[in-house]
Amino acid sequence: MRILVVNPNTTAAMTEKIGAAARAVAAHGTEIIAVNPADGPVSIEGYYDEVFSVPGLLAEIAKGEALGVAAHIIACFDDTGLEAARSLANAPVIGIGEAAFHFASMLGHRFSVVTTLSRSIAAIETNLMKYGLAAKCAKVRASEIPVLELDNPASNASAQISAEIERAKAEDHAEAIVLGCAGMANLAARLTLKHGIPVVDGVASAVKLAEGFGTLGLMTSKVSSYAQPRHKTYLGSFASFAPRG
Amino acid sequence: MRILVVNPNTTAAMTEKIGAAARAVAAHGTEIIAVNPADGPVSIEGYYDEVFSVPGLLAEIAKGEALGVAAHIIACFDDTGLEAARSLANAPVIGIGEAAFHFASMLGHRFSVVTTLSRSIAAIETNLMKYGLAAKCAKVRASEIPVLELDNPASNASAQISAEIERAKAEDHAEAIVLGCAGMANLAARLTLKHGIPVVDGVASAVKLAEGFGTLGLMTSKVSSYAQPRHKTYLGSFASFAPRG
Amino acid sequence: MRILVVNPNTTAAMTEKIGAAARAVAAHGTEIIAVNPADGPVSIEGYYDEVFSVPGLLAEIAKGEALGVAAHIIACFDDTGLEAARSLANAPVIGIGEAAFHFASMLGHRFSVVTTLSRSIAAIETNLMKYGLAAKCAKVRASEIPVLELDNPASNASAQISAEIERAKAEDHAEAIVLGCAGMANLAARLTLKHGIPVVDGVASAVKLAEGFGTLGLMTSKVSSYAQPRHKTYLGSFASFAPRG
Amino acid sequence: MRILVVNPNTTAAMTEKIGAAARAVAAHGTEIIAVNPADGPVSIEGYYDEVFSVPGLLAEIAKGEALGVAAHIIACFDDTGLEAARSLANAPVIGIGEAAFHFASMLGHRFSVVTTLSRSIAAIETNLMKYGLAAKCAKVRASEIPVLELDNPASNASAQISAEIERAKAEDHAEAIVLGCAGMANLAARLTLKHGIPVVDGVASAVKLAEGFGTLGLMTSKVSSYAQPRHKTYLGSFASFAPRG
Amino acid sequence: MRILVVNPNTTAAMTEKIGAAARAVAAHGTEIIAVNPADGPVSIEGYYDEVFSVPGLLAEIAKGEALGVAAHIIACFDDTGLEAARSLANAPVIGIGEAAFHFASMLGHRFSVVTTLSRSIAAIETNLMKYGLAAKCAKVRASEIPVLELDNPASNASAQISAEIERAKAEDHAEAIVLGCAGMANLAARLTLKHGIPVVDGVASAVKLAEGFGTLGLMTSKVSSYAQPRHKTYLGSFASFAPRG
Amino acid sequence: MRILVVNPNTTAAMTEKIGAAARAVAAHGTEIIAVNPADGPVSIEGYYDEVFSVPGLLAEIAKGEALGVAAHIIACFDDTGLEAARSLANAPVIGIGEAAFHFASMLGHRFSVVTTLSRSIAAIETNLMKYGLAAKCAKVRASEIPVLELDNPASNASAQISAEIERAKAEDHAEAIVLGCAGMANLAARLTLKHGIPVVDGVASAVKLAEGFGTLGLMTSKVSSYAQPRHKTYLGSFASFAPRG
Repeated sequence: MRILVVNPNTTAAMTEKIGAAARAVAAHGTEIIAVNPADGPVSIEGYYDEVFSVPGLLAEIAKGEALGVAAHIIACFDDTGLEAARSLANAPVIGIGEAAFHFASMLGHRFSVVTTLSRSIAAIETNLMKYGLAAKCAKVRASEIPVLELDNPASNASAQISAEIERAKAEDHAEAIVLGCAGMANLAARLTLKHGIPVVDGVASAVKLAEGFGTLGLMTSKVSSYAQPRHKTYLGSFASFAPRG
Repeated sequence: MRILVVNPNTTAAMTEKIGAAARAVAAHGTEIIAVNPADGPVSIEGYYDEVFSVPGLLAEIAKGEALGVAAHIIACFDDTGLEAARSLANAPVIGIGEAAFHFASMLGHRFSVVTTLSRSIAAIETNLMKYGLAAKCAKVRASEIPVLELDNPASNASAQISAEIERAKAEDHAEAIVLGCAGMANLAARLTLKHGIPVVDGVASAVKLAEGFGTLGLMTSKVSSYAQPRHKTYLGSFASFAPRG
Repeated sequence: MRILVVNPNTTAAMTEKIGAAARAVAAHGTEIIAVNPADGPVSIEGYYDEVFSVPGLLAEIAKGEALGVAAHIIACFDDTGLEAARSLANAPVIGIGEAAFHFASMLGHRFSVVTTLSRSIAAIETNLMKYGLAAKCAKVRASEIPVLELDNPASNASAQISAEIERAKAEDHAEAIVLGCAGMANLAARLTLKHGIPVVDGVASAVKLAEGFGTLGLMTSKVSSYAQPRHKTYLGSFASFAPRG
Repeated sequence: MRILVVNPNTTAAMTEKIGAAARAVAAHGTEIIAVNPADGPVSIEGYYDEVFSVPGLLAEIAKGEALGVAAHIIACFDDTGLEAARSLANAPVIGIGEAAFHFASMLGHRFSVVTTLSRSIAAIETNLMKYGLAAKCAKVRASEIPVLELDNPASNASAQISAEIERAKAEDHAEAIVLGCAGMANLAARLTLKHGIPVVDGVASAVKLAEGFGTLGLMTSKVSSYAQPRHKTYLGSFASFAPRG
Repeated sequence: MRILVVNPNTTAAMTEKIGAAARAVAAHGTEIIAVNPADGPVSIEGYYDEVFSVPGLLAEIAKGEALGVAAHIIACFDDTGLEAARSLANAPVIGIGEAAFHFASMLGHRFSVVTTLSRSIAAIETNLMKYGLAAKCAKVRASEIPVLELDNPASNASAQISAEIERAKAEDHAEAIVLGCAGMANLAARLTLKHGIPVVDGVASAVKLAEGFGTLGLMTSKVSSYAQPRHKTYLGSFASFAPRG
Repeated sequence: MRILVVNPNTTAAMTEKIGAAARAVAAHGTEIIAVNPADGPVSIEGYYDEVFSVPGLLAEIAKGEALGVAAHIIACFDDTGLEAARSLANAPVIGIGEAAFHFASMLGHRFSVVTTLSRSIAAIETNLMKYGLAAKCAKVRASEIPVLELDNPASNASAQISAEIERAKAEDHAEAIVLGCAGMANLAARLTLKHGIPVVDGVASAVKLAEGFGTLGLMTSKVSSYAQPRHKTYLGSFASFAPRG
């Protein structure tokens, strides 16, 4: 089974890290295809960056469909472009944010999210409401580490995130933690051990959901909300994206 | 006061119609600048089309900011790109969908929405939930008239929409109606008269909100969720959109 | 266009202040008629006072209807008597509380309210729930300044309100503020400047909504919930209020 | 123990009927004092009538407090003036609407309400939301019988209400019924027998709650939302209602 | 009228205490039958203990039905086995948790719960959501006193609970308190006096509801959700519990 | 990896069918251990049957823990005993109901559930509310086929379920279907093909989630709500279930 993992930002080093995290948990027989668009922001931090990551993301989803992948994963915690990707694809599409929320909701009474910058909190809260899982989330917290600083030892990212988890346990009575960025995928196991509660990473969670949908042959419903885009003219630089209907 | 009205699709005839509807209700002294992007879909019907309308929309918002407009209006009923536009702009940004929902919620106990295609219902329902107004909406209904057929006499659009309003009154006990497409702006007054309940158009509603925000000097809050995008590199074809921070 | 602004308490000095705030933002051509009832409480602080302000309020609304005003504004932050006024009037009726909530919800992710006394919090929270906007409100806070002390320099009202806004920013992560009393109308601009986030006054917001409804010709829906009161006998001192049907 | 039952409309025949229904279920040792105001509407049908019933209702509540009653009941299904009465009283105050909702919610998975006129539906739905019980209510239905026609044999009220209960069972899957008017108190037992599901009357339910609060010595909380009204001047015809503080 | 009060744990001393609390508030003519199962946990603290209390509880409910009691009370604050008991019984079944929540919601704007151990918070929060009353509850708090330590003077239970009530008033703005364990029934009156806000005990509240249902002749709805269990074979040690249909 | 699948009813034929469905989708290397209790009801239809299935279910969970399984699955659509099992287990515990809801919510805008008997609807609706997914479910429908009749050709089960799916598509606008009984596991693939929308089976979904949790090393959070049961005496026939703490 082939699974497409799209990092919607354009930082190849991050794509590699995400691909490695995905492969580390993939079943025997699962091939992870980790890609990123050529065009768009080097990191996604807030609503504006999201916009310019989606056309490139959809181009990658289209290629994945052509390859016949069993499922697509959007490896940005804001689940950028999720509904549009579902409209384009017949295979299921999974956001790493929703994957982590669904997983964490089955492991404890309530979870807290620890993300990068506070400007991302609104989008995450809105997603939780859309998915119905807002009441399962005690609080969305920001560590104030920018995405591309996560791997910079000088950022002290791991300690900052760990301190925020402590606060989530003490103040929110969180019983599980969701790591709110694809770039934190490598921290989950260590933080679970350290804090004694489940710390959930979305990349790994999404891979297991994708394999699940693939094995069960479940596809995106195409009857209405995610129906194939209608045949239509797109003008100018987006002409090549125009749906064939 | 200058107000920018962006039709995010690329059909100039529709921009003209929207501009006319906006000017018809604008106060003395308000200048309506009605524009559309050069690039993108000729109509917006569902999640996929939305994606390719937003970069062009944001380019227009940026021009409006440079002109110093008092407010921006996004003239697509799905409120496409609303949060990203708020991140970019200091002036307030109003979607015609939200404008109509807020207006209708003050005129009756519950309203129903009559939109174009059923593939748009999910996005409208999600917006209602985001804005908190889902409980004020009895039902979102589709007339199944495509956007660009609204002005085609052969589509029988006005009769179809009118029939759907009758059903909303009888079955949903709707006390007001929201017209769910910028291209229906010219129908509101006639349908109000015909059906004896308020029929609300989002373009006109948004113009009055925009003038209100402009007069009161209210601007978008820039402290967190809609903070100015961070300085960042965008690769490839979107390089020119990279935020200066 | 004529707009009736009813201060439902009986303090003429406050009516004047409200009228001035309304006129300061009214469009060219809008005539503001600011009135208060002859009978009832000198200020409205809690559920009990509300009761005795509404008969006089409705008498003023009836006069406004006879004058053919385009819209009515109820200038008490609790939106006292709103539904009854809508039943009586054909023109739209707008509460200053709801006006401010709707405006603030379009300027930031969440707002906090700063009102006068804590006994008013329950009514405001209930209104937010009725309007659907409870999830947009981070917290309703009381400054513990009584209504009629707002203009008493000895009350230190402005400093108290300002301190509460600071707490709302720090503790609630509020991105906008709603001032929770008609008597605070004159503070909005200064506090916006001081705190760097939008501070919304309900009187001004309601005037712009009223002008909007007036220009668009939108009226209260009379089909069911706000139908004209049925012809009926009222006994005793309220006989003159009996609906003619 | 003495319990005050206030019929907030001015129709003495209805007060007698309500008093009889209350006495029929009162415990040995409970004295029911059934009264109505001298001033106000002869029946309460919609938001406007409510307004003019509350001053007289509060005057009766004040007399009941002076008498030292153990609890007050507001015998109008809209729970007219409930919060204001709680502010005035130290004894508990119970609305017959809320009493019936609480009782019915413990007898089946969901209940439907059958009330008089459709103009009352919005107020009832809003109350259900305020009390938190909206999700326990399948539907609020109107029989379209005016309040004062309930006892007119020509109105065919009992058959109409019965037919509406049938529809509630078949269409709403209601497992219990709440009768939505004090004037229906005498119908509950017969309709329970006829339809084979619990049919709940608010007058009887409120009497049992009032006795419960009275026996347990539970009083209204006076710390904030229902604090005693502040000492204040009321002008004109309401001067005598001014709170002594 | 006979009312069955089932303490679902197997500690007879606690059953006696609960029985005494019930009798203290029962009306003249009400006979309280207080029982506990022979099999099962000596106290109920968390989800696991609940499971092993329910078979014995249901056996007691069945005996009560055979006796023709007017109502059943489940005297564990988690309302353990409530829905199953309703399926078995024709008479109404009331949990002491729900009884206290319904009572407290009519006495103040919001209440807080003070229970025993924090492991019980999730079940209580879930019940509040099921009953619709979550928004009426400011916070569920744990005193961390185990159930069977409540009467141990060394546990300092009363002081701990009192301190938690102080925090609920100061931090949650709670206007009423619900005591979250049947074993706290004897504390309500003293704590009400001490803290000046209503402190509600579920055992007493449930007795008054049970008498109310009994007097009104209201029974559990048997049409669908609480229909009599279907005739069926139960294997092994539970064979005697098999429904006769 | 070993996964325990507990059918909580005592019908071995059904356990075999469930085990076969689980093995059909299990990954290479996953061992499915399908068991059922010796004691309890032969099928679970409503709240009463649930009670008597849980002690046996927990005994099986305890054996699974002793075996060191990676995860436990509760193969009854009501997710019977889920929270108690989580308290007992360190490994994750997944209900087939929740598994199907989570899966279906990622495949379409809204799903409908088709279950066996209408007496099960209340429990399923309550679970959807507990999990936060109520708004993703358009309707819970009953085919009125008893559990043990599903495999009886005379019951016409497949045709009945198929007809109900048609109604869900037409009336509820469902975009996906959840099969509401473990005994329907074998129908999902055929019904997906027939109806052209995803038809989700909970047994298969739960296996993939269980493998996911197992691979990721995610365990149940034991800090509060699902903490290990406290050491305690259980009297009588349940003595052997007493927690060792």
